[in-house]
Amino acid sequence: MNAPVAYYDQTPGVVFRERCERRVVHTKNLMTVIIDFGNGPWAEADPMHSHPHEQITYVASGAILFLSAGDEPRRLSTGDVFAVPSGVPDSIQLLSASARLIDSFQPVREDFL
Amino acid sequence: MNAPVAYYDQTPGVVFRERCERRVVHTKNLMTVIIDFGNGPWAEADPMHSHPHEQITYVASGAILFLSAGDEPRRLSTGDVFAVPSGVPDSIQLLSASARLIDSFQPVREDFL
Repeated sequence: MNAPVAYYDQTPGVVFRERCERRVVHTKNLMTVIIDFGNGPWAEADPMHSHPHEQITYVASGAILFLSAGDEPRRLSTGDVFAVPSGVPDSIQLLSASARLIDSFQPVREDFL
Repeated sequence: MNAPVAYYDQTPGVVFRERCERRVVHTKNLMTVIIDFGNGPWAEADPMHSHPHEQITYVASGAILFLSAGDEPRRLSTGDVFAVPSGVPDSIQLLSASARLIDSFQPVREDFL
């Protein structure tokens, strides 16, 4: 296959937290992760974290609070996007019962393989 | 702003074809493009094209036929993903009246800035 396809219904999700799954697709230096959260709303945000990978996230459904170091918290919902440069600490808090985020990373996050 | 946000409703779309708009977010080496197509279905696919950038596309809504050199055409709909390694010729054909694709590229596509 020169250009791989991942059909959602045929791709087993990896459960990384109760009622939360991710599906990962990658090329050599680019990775996209479909993350389905089903455990919201959360009482508080996840702890801030950072990584050298650049990240851009599209909110496919649901609502989140997006936290990043030095910025005011921002509320995002379906259709909105946030971008995290390399090394910037960030976190989210799920505001809705469920949500789907589409995270893209470069380079590939080896810890997701 | 350490980590920029793009609210869909506050981000003007760039019309690149009749009833088709794109909204672009990028970091240093990563770009995500929200593409809203409103001119489907198409009678045929776009001409095949290729670029050195790696690309991963998430189908946020609608249905498309995904064509890539040497592969059988594949039908994708909401939730599905295709991945295009550097230099692989590919194209799509819109099968639904409208669709939203979330394209990620690395490196940044300078022609979209």
